[in-house]
Amino acid sequence: MSILQFSHSGTSENTTKFVGESRQFQITIDEPPALGGKDEAANPVEYTLASLAGCLNVVAHLIAKELEIEIHSLKINVEGDLDPGKLLTGDATQRAGFTDIRVKLDVESNAEPELLRQWLAVVRDRCPVTDNLANPTNVEIVL
Amino acid sequence: MSILQFSHSGTSENTTKFVGESRQFQITIDEPPALGGKDEAANPVEYTLASLAGCLNVVAHLIAKELEIEIHSLKINVEGDLDPGKLLTGDATQRAGFTDIRVKLDVESNAEPELLRQWLAVVRDRCPVTDNLANPTNVEIVL
Repeated sequence: MSILQFSHSGTSENTTKFVGESRQFQITIDEPPALGGKDEAANPVEYTLASLAGCLNVVAHLIAKELEIEIHSLKINVEGDLDPGKLLTGDATQRAGFTDIRVKLDVESNAEPELLRQWLAVVRDRCPVTDNLANPTNVEIVL
Repeated sequence: MSILQFSHSGTSENTTKFVGESRQFQITIDEPPALGGKDEAANPVEYTLASLAGCLNVVAHLIAKELEIEIHSLKINVEGDLDPGKLLTGDATQRAGFTDIRVKLDVESNAEPELLRQWLAVVRDRCPVTDNLANPTNVEIVL
């Protein structure tokens, strides 16, 4: 299929607050006081987890349709563990980002458990944000 | 340092719209009509790019302070290329997520180019979201 291009552009408002746009949608990001901000919005890594939850929602419904599963309700909880040592102090023994991300899908459907397990495996495999978090991606950063 | 835990929890409102919360902040995600939604908010992968931009903003200022650079202004543009073949049709020859992410930092500062290049390398190395996109992370998804 043809390649889709997505983008986000914005301006630093201060040392923690960033206001940007994707198409007509404005997104504001900040940090809580413990991380140096004024807590005017969710922080960057919370948006990462939100993007994962939102992506799993889309793919969950798409694969349910393919497998003829009716989803009656779906709740998604995402948690991530992050040691801020590398970010805040340059500690080279740590990685900068999440070490572990855990997702819990609370789904009510008409499917038997075995079919739901099959559904979950395909959802995981075809979810773009899961792929970008679980696997390496080329990230080029230039001035 | 002690491990920080971040989270995001929410509910599927329909096949593309997801409304969730991180602490007191509500985030709404949808898809444009071309991807099956009603375009009520940015889509999941746009939030991924926003989280990267917001994270680079925070780390850019942190490292500038360490290197005694004054940042007068900072604009960030992020683009990502995604082939939707695996997501939409299960095409196993593709990956599901972004194949390439490109970031352009447009910075005005008092630093010479060589110091800015050094700054950029440290920003990249210590940015949590860059780390989670560029490198593999354990993502556990359960029912």
